[in-house]
Amino acid sequence: MERVYIFDTTLRDGEQAAGCHLSTVEKIQIAGALGRLGVDVIEAGFPVSSPGDFNSVVEISKAVKGPVICALTRCLKSDIDVAVEALRYASEKRIHTGIGTSDYHIKYKFETTRKEILRRAVESVRYARRFVPDVEFYCEDAGRTDNQFLAEVVEAVIKAGATVVNIPDTTGYCLPNEFGEKIAYLKGNVKGIDNVILSVHCHNDLGMATACAFEGVRNGARQVECTVNGVGERAGNTAMEEICMILKCHKNLGLDTGIVTRNIVKTSHLVSNLMNSPVQANKAVVGRNAFSHSSGIHQDGVLKHKETYEIIDPKDVGADKSNIVLTARSGRAALKTRLKRLGVDVSDSKMVDSIYSKFLKLADRQTYITDDDIVAISGIDHNAVMAVQILEHKVSSALGDGAVAYLKLSVKGSEKEATAVGNGPVDASIKALKQILGVDMTLQEFTIQSVDRGSDDIGKVYMQVLYNDGLYYGFSASSDIVLASLQAYIDAVNQFI
Amino acid sequence: MERVYIFDTTLRDGEQAAGCHLSTVEKIQIAGALGRLGVDVIEAGFPVSSPGDFNSVVEISKAVKGPVICALTRCLKSDIDVAVEALRYASEKRIHTGIGTSDYHIKYKFETTRKEILRRAVESVRYARRFVPDVEFYCEDAGRTDNQFLAEVVEAVIKAGATVVNIPDTTGYCLPNEFGEKIAYLKGNVKGIDNVILSVHCHNDLGMATACAFEGVRNGARQVECTVNGVGERAGNTAMEEICMILKCHKNLGLDTGIVTRNIVKTSHLVSNLMNSPVQANKAVVGRNAFSHSSGIHQDGVLKHKETYEIIDPKDVGADKSNIVLTARSGRAALKTRLKRLGVDVSDSKMVDSIYSKFLKLADRQTYITDDDIVAISGIDHNAVMAVQILEHKVSSALGDGAVAYLKLSVKGSEKEATAVGNGPVDASIKALKQILGVDMTLQEFTIQSVDRGSDDIGKVYMQVLYNDGLYYGFSASSDIVLASLQAYIDAVNQFI
Repeated sequence: MERVYIFDTTLRDGEQAAGCHLSTVEKIQIAGALGRLGVDVIEAGFPVSSPGDFNSVVEISKAVKGPVICALTRCLKSDIDVAVEALRYASEKRIHTGIGTSDYHIKYKFETTRKEILRRAVESVRYARRFVPDVEFYCEDAGRTDNQFLAEVVEAVIKAGATVVNIPDTTGYCLPNEFGEKIAYLKGNVKGIDNVILSVHCHNDLGMATACAFEGVRNGARQVECTVNGVGERAGNTAMEEICMILKCHKNLGLDTGIVTRNIVKTSHLVSNLMNSPVQANKAVVGRNAFSHSSGIHQDGVLKHKETYEIIDPKDVGADKSNIVLTARSGRAALKTRLKRLGVDVSDSKMVDSIYSKFLKLADRQTYITDDDIVAISGIDHNAVMAVQILEHKVSSALGDGAVAYLKLSVKGSEKEATAVGNGPVDASIKALKQILGVDMTLQEFTIQSVDRGSDDIGKVYMQVLYNDGLYYGFSASSDIVLASLQAYIDAVNQFI
Repeated sequence: MERVYIFDTTLRDGEQAAGCHLSTVEKIQIAGALGRLGVDVIEAGFPVSSPGDFNSVVEISKAVKGPVICALTRCLKSDIDVAVEALRYASEKRIHTGIGTSDYHIKYKFETTRKEILRRAVESVRYARRFVPDVEFYCEDAGRTDNQFLAEVVEAVIKAGATVVNIPDTTGYCLPNEFGEKIAYLKGNVKGIDNVILSVHCHNDLGMATACAFEGVRNGARQVECTVNGVGERAGNTAMEEICMILKCHKNLGLDTGIVTRNIVKTSHLVSNLMNSPVQANKAVVGRNAFSHSSGIHQDGVLKHKETYEIIDPKDVGADKSNIVLTARSGRAALKTRLKRLGVDVSDSKMVDSIYSKFLKLADRQTYITDDDIVAISGIDHNAVMAVQILEHKVSSALGDGAVAYLKLSVKGSEKEATAVGNGPVDASIKALKQILGVDMTLQEFTIQSVDRGSDDIGKVYMQVLYNDGLYYGFSASSDIVLASLQAYIDAVNQFI
């Protein structure tokens, strides 16, 4: 297998995303996780851009050993000096310098000429090589740079001592085939190209950052610059998890990365949490639904033979095993499997038909069908099912004093109550609930989204509760988000109590 | 320009996503929006799968005129009968029937032979053609189907009367170049292929659904099956907004869709809200950050010449104009522009340097820098700046009785208080705030995410407040999500009060 190097820029390009700012401590935490994930290079920051960025590069260089630590600069001696200083504690270090090479950049941003750009590029690479043996050069906006001039720049920086040359599609404009052709052109027309690593850095403005990077690799690039979850400026960068799984799923390409894929989901969660950047449910590889099958046809297929609809084994990326979620789209096959698991005899196909028809009616009204619902419609003695319902709920809180919640529940028909204090109304309510139920469970995920404009509109609450190694989903919607949060928790609890 | 047809399956494949269930009324609402967006075909449901799906197809057929209304079936007469019945009110209708053609599906799902699959396919198309003149056939898992057998099936169904042939990459396994070659193979090897529309339907398991669909189009497909926001089973489908903007940005391809692109963002919000499916910030075209520039180098470029970093004009897709967000990554150019807007004299470059250095220190501590912060660090008389701060805050609520909030604020140095009732603690608190400030503003977006596990962990609140046609962002984090919500609102308010 030939190696494709993973250059992670979550902490530099990724952190440029609006709203994703990280503290130095958070950056060290992520850098550590990237090390455990097995990335080859960590771009730790752009030291000259701010004191915080400088500091982060220093601290990451001290804390994380293994991956090469890289610092970004412009083609300015002063930038390079600062980067060298920031990297002084790194065992393996790289300076990433470069300049815009497209006519847009040359004309409007630098107001200069191609000749002058070429001069600055060569001078910077030479200067950086005085301090470090590993110098990567980026041709900013290479995606819109004329191939012939691009080849000229690349050849010149290789001659000047660059060890890695990065071809970014800075605006995310390239089509995958065009970008692949650009890389092939460089491989075919630049003297010395085989002595350096050709790198690709793609943006997602048209939704094709991963495909462009892949086409680059297919045409000879051997380093991919990417971020966890694809975060980054505007629509983001190539997603690290996608490029890794493409190479892993398509072994016939003879390419591989050093990524420990079973750490992917864990790292994705860490980055999402610290960057305050939720991952959408249908995000490839790391989204909540990436391995959820909800249509009847698919569920039937997956139950018969996993490969029918699944190309990635969820375990390979550290995700829970694929979910069969019962919804209005589920077929008989999925319902039967669930009924069996719940101890219902499914040998009588007429009875299954009757349960299925009740199930469909119910599923048309509610998004998720709980095990409780299924037991109910299958006519099993209802008293055997423990159901939790809210009878009374009061909360009060004051700034600085915390919150108090009073809760009265009906649990399996009998009334139970509790009062609890907490950091806020939701926390206090959930503590009261746990006190009543006496069950050890953990809130895993908790998202509230307003359904429409205005504070008095309905909020939808989505929760994931971990109990005995099982994950249970809870939903609720109410114009009172505190009550909705409690109801969502109970919705989840009702599935295992 | 040659036309590429947009076949929207948000209401069928999109709605299959776990947690995305829609009521019939919601489906009609989305179908109406799709009509205004200019999609060519609306796949309204899979009528035989549930009574709700049946009903939705009936009601959408009645309510939405313009696009072709399409219903999905398996290769079963009974499915087709039900679909015909469901489509009876549609002015323009299509039946979409099909069967698995890959060996995985034939062997494990159907436990049959290629010959038998071919027979069922032909029979179903013939049967469907008895009722409607427009019949689309899908070769499920075509992505993993041997090209020669696939060509055989496609030729047979064309002969049987299919008007559109759909080549789905059901598992999202294909590489874009492979998928493009498959389409080219069919164009070159199937008799009668030029008399039908070849359609592509790709899945996003490896993050390349859009690129695969595009490669299909580049090789001769003229219909793309896609969903708004790319929602759908598992990692979702090709995103409608991406494929449209690719063709729009690359006019030299000579291809175009009928999509009214300025309705894209509006439709994206509607689908996200009704499906309870938040779009991630860096989603291409429709994400919150899709047009946000936060790094210094980029901001400088955009301010000098928009095309330096922007390939899509945000107005073209109905988004607000691109945001320059001030963060630790912002350069002098962006800061100067903001200072000017705030009325600060920027002719003294030494003064700008001093403000910039204070700005960087502050930005390293906080994610977003508000206009208020900038005014503060630029040394303008602080008393001229009205700042809102919480002095006291109490809430109480009881199930069935609503909530009451008491709030005391410092507004521009003077104390003001109010008590308000609302649907819940957050609603009541925001009403009290509005009462004190007497300003007309609307909450546009409101998301709460837990930072880590457990109900007593910090929740991060993100808000967007609309005031005088301007959008203001507010952030806050607290273990009390009610307080955090209020603080986030005040954070937004502090930017324009």
